[in-house]
Amino acid sequence: MIIVMAANVPQASVDRVVSEIERMGCKAHLSRGTFRTVIGAIGEEGAIDQHRLTTLDGVEKVVPIMTPYKLASREFHEEDSVVQIGGRSTPRQLVGGKHALSIAGPCTIENREMLWRIARHVKEGGATVLRGGAFKPRTSPYSFQGLGEQALQWLRECGDELGMPICTEVMDTRQVELVNQYTDMFQIGARNMQNFDLLREVGKTDKPVLLKRGLAATVKDWLLSAEYVLSQGNRAVILCERGIKTFEDSIRFTMDITSIPVARKLSHLPIIVDPSHAAGRRDYVGALACAGMAAGAHGTMIEVHYCPAEAQCDGPQALLPETFASLMTQLRLIAKLYGREFPN
Amino acid sequence: MIIVMAANVPQASVDRVVSEIERMGCKAHLSRGTFRTVIGAIGEEGAIDQHRLTTLDGVEKVVPIMTPYKLASREFHEEDSVVQIGGRSTPRQLVGGKHALSIAGPCTIENREMLWRIARHVKEGGATVLRGGAFKPRTSPYSFQGLGEQALQWLRECGDELGMPICTEVMDTRQVELVNQYTDMFQIGARNMQNFDLLREVGKTDKPVLLKRGLAATVKDWLLSAEYVLSQGNRAVILCERGIKTFEDSIRFTMDITSIPVARKLSHLPIIVDPSHAAGRRDYVGALACAGMAAGAHGTMIEVHYCPAEAQCDGPQALLPETFASLMTQLRLIAKLYGREFPN
Amino acid sequence: MIIVMAANVPQASVDRVVSEIERMGCKAHLSRGTFRTVIGAIGEEGAIDQHRLTTLDGVEKVVPIMTPYKLASREFHEEDSVVQIGGRSTPRQLVGGKHALSIAGPCTIENREMLWRIARHVKEGGATVLRGGAFKPRTSPYSFQGLGEQALQWLRECGDELGMPICTEVMDTRQVELVNQYTDMFQIGARNMQNFDLLREVGKTDKPVLLKRGLAATVKDWLLSAEYVLSQGNRAVILCERGIKTFEDSIRFTMDITSIPVARKLSHLPIIVDPSHAAGRRDYVGALACAGMAAGAHGTMIEVHYCPAEAQCDGPQALLPETFASLMTQLRLIAKLYGREFPN
Amino acid sequence: MIIVMAANVPQASVDRVVSEIERMGCKAHLSRGTFRTVIGAIGEEGAIDQHRLTTLDGVEKVVPIMTPYKLASREFHEEDSVVQIGGRSTPRQLVGGKHALSIAGPCTIENREMLWRIARHVKEGGATVLRGGAFKPRTSPYSFQGLGEQALQWLRECGDELGMPICTEVMDTRQVELVNQYTDMFQIGARNMQNFDLLREVGKTDKPVLLKRGLAATVKDWLLSAEYVLSQGNRAVILCERGIKTFEDSIRFTMDITSIPVARKLSHLPIIVDPSHAAGRRDYVGALACAGMAAGAHGTMIEVHYCPAEAQCDGPQALLPETFASLMTQLRLIAKLYGREFPN
Repeated sequence: MIIVMAANVPQASVDRVVSEIERMGCKAHLSRGTFRTVIGAIGEEGAIDQHRLTTLDGVEKVVPIMTPYKLASREFHEEDSVVQIGGRSTPRQLVGGKHALSIAGPCTIENREMLWRIARHVKEGGATVLRGGAFKPRTSPYSFQGLGEQALQWLRECGDELGMPICTEVMDTRQVELVNQYTDMFQIGARNMQNFDLLREVGKTDKPVLLKRGLAATVKDWLLSAEYVLSQGNRAVILCERGIKTFEDSIRFTMDITSIPVARKLSHLPIIVDPSHAAGRRDYVGALACAGMAAGAHGTMIEVHYCPAEAQCDGPQALLPETFASLMTQLRLIAKLYGREFPN
Repeated sequence: MIIVMAANVPQASVDRVVSEIERMGCKAHLSRGTFRTVIGAIGEEGAIDQHRLTTLDGVEKVVPIMTPYKLASREFHEEDSVVQIGGRSTPRQLVGGKHALSIAGPCTIENREMLWRIARHVKEGGATVLRGGAFKPRTSPYSFQGLGEQALQWLRECGDELGMPICTEVMDTRQVELVNQYTDMFQIGARNMQNFDLLREVGKTDKPVLLKRGLAATVKDWLLSAEYVLSQGNRAVILCERGIKTFEDSIRFTMDITSIPVARKLSHLPIIVDPSHAAGRRDYVGALACAGMAAGAHGTMIEVHYCPAEAQCDGPQALLPETFASLMTQLRLIAKLYGREFPN
Repeated sequence: MIIVMAANVPQASVDRVVSEIERMGCKAHLSRGTFRTVIGAIGEEGAIDQHRLTTLDGVEKVVPIMTPYKLASREFHEEDSVVQIGGRSTPRQLVGGKHALSIAGPCTIENREMLWRIARHVKEGGATVLRGGAFKPRTSPYSFQGLGEQALQWLRECGDELGMPICTEVMDTRQVELVNQYTDMFQIGARNMQNFDLLREVGKTDKPVLLKRGLAATVKDWLLSAEYVLSQGNRAVILCERGIKTFEDSIRFTMDITSIPVARKLSHLPIIVDPSHAAGRRDYVGALACAGMAAGAHGTMIEVHYCPAEAQCDGPQALLPETFASLMTQLRLIAKLYGREFPN
Repeated sequence: MIIVMAANVPQASVDRVVSEIERMGCKAHLSRGTFRTVIGAIGEEGAIDQHRLTTLDGVEKVVPIMTPYKLASREFHEEDSVVQIGGRSTPRQLVGGKHALSIAGPCTIENREMLWRIARHVKEGGATVLRGGAFKPRTSPYSFQGLGEQALQWLRECGDELGMPICTEVMDTRQVELVNQYTDMFQIGARNMQNFDLLREVGKTDKPVLLKRGLAATVKDWLLSAEYVLSQGNRAVILCERGIKTFEDSIRFTMDITSIPVARKLSHLPIIVDPSHAAGRRDYVGALACAGMAAGAHGTMIEVHYCPAEAQCDGPQALLPETFASLMTQLRLIAKLYGREFPN
């Protein structure tokens, strides 16, 4: 921790900071410049109360040196983590390092028949993990909120039958136990990225957690949320970039492609992209998925829906099954350029 | 709902949109322009599935006409709402319309003695509702997370003794019942503004809800979150502006002062400002509090902490009791210019 | 300047940084922590090439200690600057410290009669500097671009007749000489805040410069742009907050009220607010103007337009003369609470 | 243009809007819904003054239907434009459609020897257009501002000798004539994207214009700036995405990858990416360049600098020549997946 003093502060202020640092069990190291004094606090940074130092008289700013997350940090774990999904009632799938992952399925599980039909399509197209929403976070209380446990049962059956591990969102601490009975992977949505009680609860389970980035979260905030899960003992966290909120209004969210190399530099955790929610409309999904893989992501999560003769496709962002299949072909080629492979 | 068709689409696409609108129970009204056809869907807008229309062939964009929230809307309730806080074991306090509200207290309840001391200070300074954190949302799992029920007990006792209704944050659906036994008002933090299950739970209680704006939430998103509470039957929602996330890095959050006249135009709900969390440092708290009142807010929530001889003040954003008292004097004068009054 | 080395770097990397710092004429001061070494570069910070240090092997980050602007800094000039406008063919007006300023007038000068009429209205309402656009920055090349020199002549005549100094925007280095023949104050628009050649040209004149904040500029960027003007010898710069670009879409720009106390802390320059361009619609202009003054601004710039019987008012953001006059009454009362005064 | 009236407005307000629309030479088309009336203005949208309609009594909002740019729009020009660079004293290079472009070189031209050396490196690495700064926009007035005409002369000689067209930034209308004597392509920097006089001046030349996106510009704003150039008769505009300003602080700017498919959908103009300025540090440049090509860009502009034995590399964002060369190999492979080719 570095403490920068304001210009021309009295010696008493400097002494006060030094004594606080020593009281916290660290050593203080002074650098007197032409205009200012800078104090280094040497020792375990976790021991230092940055906020307290900030409030001392004459302190201009306090600059932390070490990352505030440990288990998520690449300093803690130098190699890429490889996370396993499924492996109980379905074959296991891997993500991280050389292993690329394709998760696909409908946004929401509307009925049994539709789920099976889409699941077969995405499996043929190349997905190896099946997604589907049972509990849906909706900005309006008047929108459809999901079918709950009934949807979880169908998803489990469908995954088992097709040999695909399943992934579904959990929104509330009270649902964790129920969802845990069915799912192979928990999804934490963007709006719950800092629902710390929920992070702790899924951190106590032994299922991998797909952690979406919050709409206003920096990469550092995101890794701190991952740390909540990791600190409970669950080391299977997969990051998922799905766009941040910016002023650009031609799309719903701005997919922050730079977060991929940044998160991979700072952390060993696998990271995938969700181009469907970022774009919010299907004609941009392919470009964003390819960009994500080319930036170094370990996979994609994509919404797919078929288009029956008698009805229009639901969901402006869902790809048609045939579009998904040809996108997967492109994604395989890109992944290969990076020495990464999707299972087939 | 207005549906704008792309340039030069075939008549079949137009017909398709018309028949979908009619299937949803509405009437379609065509405007054929020089280049494009625009279709108005006339009827109950809630009946129309905007997403479905968006995905139809040839549709360029769909523009909703009506606000997606009803109970929060000023169209629904023309007069300013006045919300009552307390009135059971303490005198009641009002906020909204002519009634200005001052909530103050420590960020976190650290111990009994400190709470009483700060509470007496803020009461003298002019606050009429006492705040204090028992459960704390912390971005790092390694930071202090609050004292829980013990802190709630102290807060209740302290409020009763001093005759101040109390307000405290609830973070998890599982805590609602417990917190409800103690508090006079629930606070929903910015990071939980779209924790929809939590909104529903506090919406089932009969206590007012202080709803902070999310860091990436538009005013419309915020009012939709208020709608979640209101739609459960609880009509006592108070909005609280506490800053949004922007690129400006000299402060923690950018207090969006414009949200005050915007929310007041769109909604009848009272709105207050929290300059402490927006600024993140005490030297800007006064300016932001005054700006909030001058923009038309119905009050403030401010963190206060004393500064004992033996220790530095905690919390870089907490005001000293004497600073708080003189700020309240200024705020009373500003409120008066708007025909609004803080009690005594 | 503080240089933080990565964890576990070899001694050679540290030595290399030290020798570079010494080569730049500064002294290096080492702090060896448990995990990292931190190096302070002591001496004239301007002498240090931060970018070069950033690229050296083993350097994790470089933290500047001193502000990169000098003439704009409050460290350089402790008291509030008071800037004088006019005083040649019109009475002079002051802004800064105790002196509040009200600039008002039409957005664009459309014709002579309209200018005179609005000018009389704003003078009666309490404005002391007259604004009006002769060269207009328009996002579309197909929009009206202003009347140029003809408009400048009218503005000069009108200001002289009514005894009001005038202010008008300059957009291009080639216009500076022409505009300088007419105006009492140059306005630099938000989109030109980093048009460095233009800043230098107005910095060579002896007229005050009203510098609007750029849509994506931090307060630090803004003060650096002020430094461009100041460094040419022109010490009469007035900052003008007019909103930044954020995700909020209910208004055009988000007026960043916090920039007022921040800029006043960092700099001695006067700062005013332009609520008209921030809001983009007249019903929010009053709330933003009041909030700006309550946050500590030294004045306002507001667009006004009358509403003749035969036509609708132009400009969705222009106030009617009578609304402007009653807003000025409110602003005077707020200014008084801060010991600041608008002239008569 | 669609005009949405507020709920329950009197018939007189509707009549007034209708008569205004007719006065502007268009036809009005009414849709009366259950709660509101919506009016379509049918005719040439350019004829309608949207601002005036917005200010009429009872108007809630005005929704434009047509794009405000014409020459930049894909509706105007369905096929991808192919722009030619050079072809006078150097071989010509193409960009757009199937033609990918690689621009590379130093950030700033510091001296003759360094320019030749880097130019040879980038040519070997696969670049076909040489960039280099003669006039530099610097946020601080105390930073190096470029060598001006001397640098232009060297750049011209170097390009001619190596057979590479050259590209350099122009910052001021007064420089256009001078720069035009030397360069094959003008670069307009992000901070000048809305310097409308400058856009007009380069629009009067017959050289292609590389138009960087502004830090706070939407894709629509960007295309309107392109329209300024195009409307002067110069149809050779190349868009360049270089990152927007967001809250994320681990990098300088957030490269908005989605702008590539969005701009390509809306416009026929070629679009390239500048990962060097977006990232601000070399370790992320490769990932962003690849992501850009995978999202559908027509090329890249990358800063390169060698690292002589006796000195450290300048510029934290410049790639080493060997890194650039191997990145080009990767970019060729990605381009090929999209049927696009870099010349060799």
